[in-house]
Amino acid sequence: MTDDAGVDGDAETDADDERGGDPEVPADPEHESEIPEDHPRYESLLTRHRIERGVDIGITSKQGLIAEGRGEAFDYLLGEETLPSADAAARAAAAHLLLAEHPVLSVNGNVAALVPGEIVDLAEASGADIEVNLFNRTDERMAAIADHLREHGASEVKGLAADGRIPGLSHERAKVDVDGIGDADVVVVPLEDGDRAEALGAMGKTEIVIDLNPMSRSAQVAAVPIVDNIIRAVPNITRHAAELADASDEELREIVENFDREAALDEAERAIREGDLD
Amino acid sequence: MTDDAGVDGDAETDADDERGGDPEVPADPEHESEIPEDHPRYESLLTRHRIERGVDIGITSKQGLIAEGRGEAFDYLLGEETLPSADAAARAAAAHLLLAEHPVLSVNGNVAALVPGEIVDLAEASGADIEVNLFNRTDERMAAIADHLREHGASEVKGLAADGRIPGLSHERAKVDVDGIGDADVVVVPLEDGDRAEALGAMGKTEIVIDLNPMSRSAQVAAVPIVDNIIRAVPNITRHAAELADASDEELREIVENFDREAALDEAERAIREGDLD
Repeated sequence: MTDDAGVDGDAETDADDERGGDPEVPADPEHESEIPEDHPRYESLLTRHRIERGVDIGITSKQGLIAEGRGEAFDYLLGEETLPSADAAARAAAAHLLLAEHPVLSVNGNVAALVPGEIVDLAEASGADIEVNLFNRTDERMAAIADHLREHGASEVKGLAADGRIPGLSHERAKVDVDGIGDADVVVVPLEDGDRAEALGAMGKTEIVIDLNPMSRSAQVAAVPIVDNIIRAVPNITRHAAELADASDEELREIVENFDREAALDEAERAIREGDLD
Repeated sequence: MTDDAGVDGDAETDADDERGGDPEVPADPEHESEIPEDHPRYESLLTRHRIERGVDIGITSKQGLIAEGRGEAFDYLLGEETLPSADAAARAAAAHLLLAEHPVLSVNGNVAALVPGEIVDLAEASGADIEVNLFNRTDERMAAIADHLREHGASEVKGLAADGRIPGLSHERAKVDVDGIGDADVVVVPLEDGDRAEALGAMGKTEIVIDLNPMSRSAQVAAVPIVDNIIRAVPNITRHAAELADASDEELREIVENFDREAALDEAERAIREGDLD
């Protein structure tokens, strides 16, 4: 993304230009497999394809599209790569998940659109539950997201019971499953609204946040803030979880204790401030 | 915007939080007049209201919503205010427009959604034509945008004839009116795709670009890059045009010559890199 990071942009992106101009990539690929993996902007094309598909199947909202744009801008400033500190955060997240009594992955509309299969893989590698959790909750979106996750291999999707509440939030926004997030000791929230991130923290849960803005309240209150694109971060946590599958609890606790959240947030902020923007 | 600048965000924004929590502001105001002008996030609420209305009436595209998000992130990093260099650029833009033989304001989906009345005011203050110009052109969007501009007071809207072409671009993306952008000596393009910005420049036109990313190709090729939110920039050019209405051509040329585009781009980039991000 270089050309149209304006509040005022129409449809003009480098990604579009390249899709339009590159005979190898259909302008509007119906299947991801039509996007060549060695394309220089593969990740960007894949993200765009998935988010647009999310709109088509009713799981990505207008707000979700705007949030996608904010993410693109921050990822651009970060150089569209995983910082060493973000990799360390992903490893600490994996250790937290493996140590947890009851880990839960919280899934919203954009998470489901962007990384449905990757979330299922992470749930399997870490023994976590998957719970759909929407800020603007409607029955239709809840069902569409649950279906989308099941199509990508999820065996159980929580969040539809909504028989529990997060204290301190208004009714609709507080809804969780009693035997899901309500019971979790470790939650992955990629990404969470600041109010809910604070409220979940106040419940004593260990929060792992994935957020491209290191200054966001969610990143600031997380035990483990992963400042990275969700498309890179979720598979990265899974990779670390697989590597750590046979690690002892002592080794896992050491990883958790050695992770420096302040240093990670500082490195990400420095990367945004001082990165090579050309 | 602080909480959800992630590629992975759902519907969670501070603006939403505040709308939801502030009894003065309806959660989904039907009319802008329901948003109190002294609200601390008035501009943000207004922008959000207009862009969502743009979706509802078919003039803001999916790509437009993503571009809106990118703009929000850059504006956040800029401190959501007009830099002195952006104000100088707006003044130089006004001088260019007043000196022009045939100035034209190019309007895309987001421009029409966000500043329809402001564009009409600028056209009146500067004697410029208004031309609708879309990257993803469809007859329906062209008509909807022209209608929206007329509802906001535009007497003539060009772009529907599309009997001219910008050399060096593919057919659909090259379309302009022969007696509009085709004939213009000065064009305001808020904002333009990099390829088209370069192609318009190659035609010898003086380009005034409004773009929140100072590193974008459009900003880089513009004679006058205004790195500012379009919601602030367009009225600001109009204000300068009104102030300069009685200025002599010599005075106007002096303003044009004294504007330092490199310094303006540098100041904007510094503001993003080194701004107070807390």
